[in-house]
Amino acid sequence: MAPEFKVTPWEVSGDVDYDMLVERFGTSRIDSTLKERLAKYGEPHTLLKRNVFYSHRDLPWLLDLYDKGQSFYLYTGRGPSGDTHLGHLMPWIFAKHLQDMFGATIYFQLTDDEKFLFRQDLELEDTRRMAFENALDFMALGFDPEKTRIILDTECIKTLYPLALKVSKKVTFSTARAVFGFDNSTNIGSIFYTSIQAAPCFLESEREGRTVPCLIPCGIDQDPHFRVARDVAPGLGYPKPALIHNKMFPGLEGGDKMSSSNPDATIYTTDNAKTVKRKVGKAFTGGCVSAEEQREKGGNPEICAVFKYNYFLFEEDDAKLDDLVSRCRSGDILCGECKGLLTAKINGFLEGHQRRREEAKAIMHEITLDGFEW
Amino acid sequence: MAPEFKVTPWEVSGDVDYDMLVERFGTSRIDSTLKERLAKYGEPHTLLKRNVFYSHRDLPWLLDLYDKGQSFYLYTGRGPSGDTHLGHLMPWIFAKHLQDMFGATIYFQLTDDEKFLFRQDLELEDTRRMAFENALDFMALGFDPEKTRIILDTECIKTLYPLALKVSKKVTFSTARAVFGFDNSTNIGSIFYTSIQAAPCFLESEREGRTVPCLIPCGIDQDPHFRVARDVAPGLGYPKPALIHNKMFPGLEGGDKMSSSNPDATIYTTDNAKTVKRKVGKAFTGGCVSAEEQREKGGNPEICAVFKYNYFLFEEDDAKLDDLVSRCRSGDILCGECKGLLTAKINGFLEGHQRRREEAKAIMHEITLDGFEW
Repeated sequence: MAPEFKVTPWEVSGDVDYDMLVERFGTSRIDSTLKERLAKYGEPHTLLKRNVFYSHRDLPWLLDLYDKGQSFYLYTGRGPSGDTHLGHLMPWIFAKHLQDMFGATIYFQLTDDEKFLFRQDLELEDTRRMAFENALDFMALGFDPEKTRIILDTECIKTLYPLALKVSKKVTFSTARAVFGFDNSTNIGSIFYTSIQAAPCFLESEREGRTVPCLIPCGIDQDPHFRVARDVAPGLGYPKPALIHNKMFPGLEGGDKMSSSNPDATIYTTDNAKTVKRKVGKAFTGGCVSAEEQREKGGNPEICAVFKYNYFLFEEDDAKLDDLVSRCRSGDILCGECKGLLTAKINGFLEGHQRRREEAKAIMHEITLDGFEW
Repeated sequence: MAPEFKVTPWEVSGDVDYDMLVERFGTSRIDSTLKERLAKYGEPHTLLKRNVFYSHRDLPWLLDLYDKGQSFYLYTGRGPSGDTHLGHLMPWIFAKHLQDMFGATIYFQLTDDEKFLFRQDLELEDTRRMAFENALDFMALGFDPEKTRIILDTECIKTLYPLALKVSKKVTFSTARAVFGFDNSTNIGSIFYTSIQAAPCFLESEREGRTVPCLIPCGIDQDPHFRVARDVAPGLGYPKPALIHNKMFPGLEGGDKMSSSNPDATIYTTDNAKTVKRKVGKAFTGGCVSAEEQREKGGNPEICAVFKYNYFLFEEDDAKLDDLVSRCRSGDILCGECKGLLTAKINGFLEGHQRRREEAKAIMHEITLDGFEW
């Protein structure tokens, strides 16, 4: 029986089979040939080597153009529905790597309209406030302020709206229903919304008056939006945006996606050291019931949230990661010690991140699209 | 059998039964009591006396508030899909009368987004250009520049969008489908669009941070949009907009609505005297086949487009209109002469209108919402 899971831009549930998702969505795997090609542009990022970024659309096409001297721009975003957590940072860290490697401009879209429309409990004032906090985290990762522009949908709507109108004219309700699972009770703002998320895909082409390719690093759950955008692009005279997809960042409780709906299984970028220690301490692991049993039988890193955190973000050294796995399996290291090591790494990262986050406040007014004021 | 006719914001067809429309839409007739009440605020306009403005929603409620010292604002608009014709001017002439009588601010919305979305043959550049031309005609009618603000949707979207989002969150696809007759092939921009037309209903309340009532003079074909707006208003903390509806201005070919789809049966505000003469000359009348027969049997003003033009706009003097009817029925005046009289009146009006239309160009930059530049 096929595993039951659901992946939409607004819901990731069940035990996600990422191989099956590539087939279901019709994307392409990043295979060894493509990995080798990417290695020509610079040292491959750990997230690529470890297949966290594992799927794409039209990446070879984009690289062909780049090789011929045609620059491209990056576009990613965030739906501001709450505080930023480590799961949000992951694709942005990779986006920063891409900006450095290709010298690319990046647009970061904060969809305050989307979260207002899809969340009954949020007002526009809420999503707008959260957007600012999220943007601080984005900039704390070190994006080049000269090559980075923040889009806040309600502030930048005059730029986005004409593009969104053009997209929306080519998308029927049938299509939106099929792609997003809408029904008769869906509100008409939500139905229209994908047009707004599509707009930045074409922004540079529109502004430059010529074809400017776009590469979107994003979670594979966001792919449906860009499938729609890609479908309409040729009819509007724009190139289809290329994509590079990541798997979801896991929750500490062992689930497939870190989610704000369980704050205790979610590490926020503003958590203090004590909170991180407490949350990691409660993480789901592959350990045994007793220390004795674990020393004898060993642990199981494959199902362990602590291991996944190391794998995704906190142990970039392959040899050290392998060593950790061996020691876990042999019963040489127990969960308590392993959690302690991860806690130290996360707190080390957050200490620097929180400092850079504060520093980012000084430049927030310089990096907004069309010079909007927060 | 009930007469077959269709009235939506995008289509008026068949032989419209305006009495039945009041029941179908659930609006209220302007009865003699309400007419008498309106007469207290100033000399009643011909269009009201003659029941061209014949239906309303919540007008007594608005007047009650006005009597207690609560001012209201006016809101009307135009979908810029082509040149302005006399049919477009009619509700604006009445709106001008309301502005004068109540000293009210008026918002005039030009829905360049709507016409782009609903018309396959129009681009945004087209509807925007037409919007400017339409706005010239509006201002040529003498609106007070100090109390008039033009909204061009794509230019003013930053102001409209947050309001539209709030509206759209409360309107399901089911509702939009039921009210507007949408189906699965409707594009998602069109589905969302009513939210944009609803936004100005709440603009003054939003800006003032208090309840500011809104009165919308408009063709009854636009009522469905405002039915939606009225339904969501209480949930958003805004007052329901009040409406006063007019019947459609007839075409010269005898149809119920002057339409740009038959340019020869449509008098544009920029037509020259010769063109007007030609078009009126070809108008459908209630005359007989031969002059002899008509002198004997008389004509039928009830079905005559020339009579309707006099009734709606060009003969404000009731006694003179009655005299014209008598002379028609008795065979004393034939269609050729009657057409000549109407032609002279229209050309007299257009001469002044076209001059004021040119003069309006000088103030167009002063009267835009949020100071947008054309």
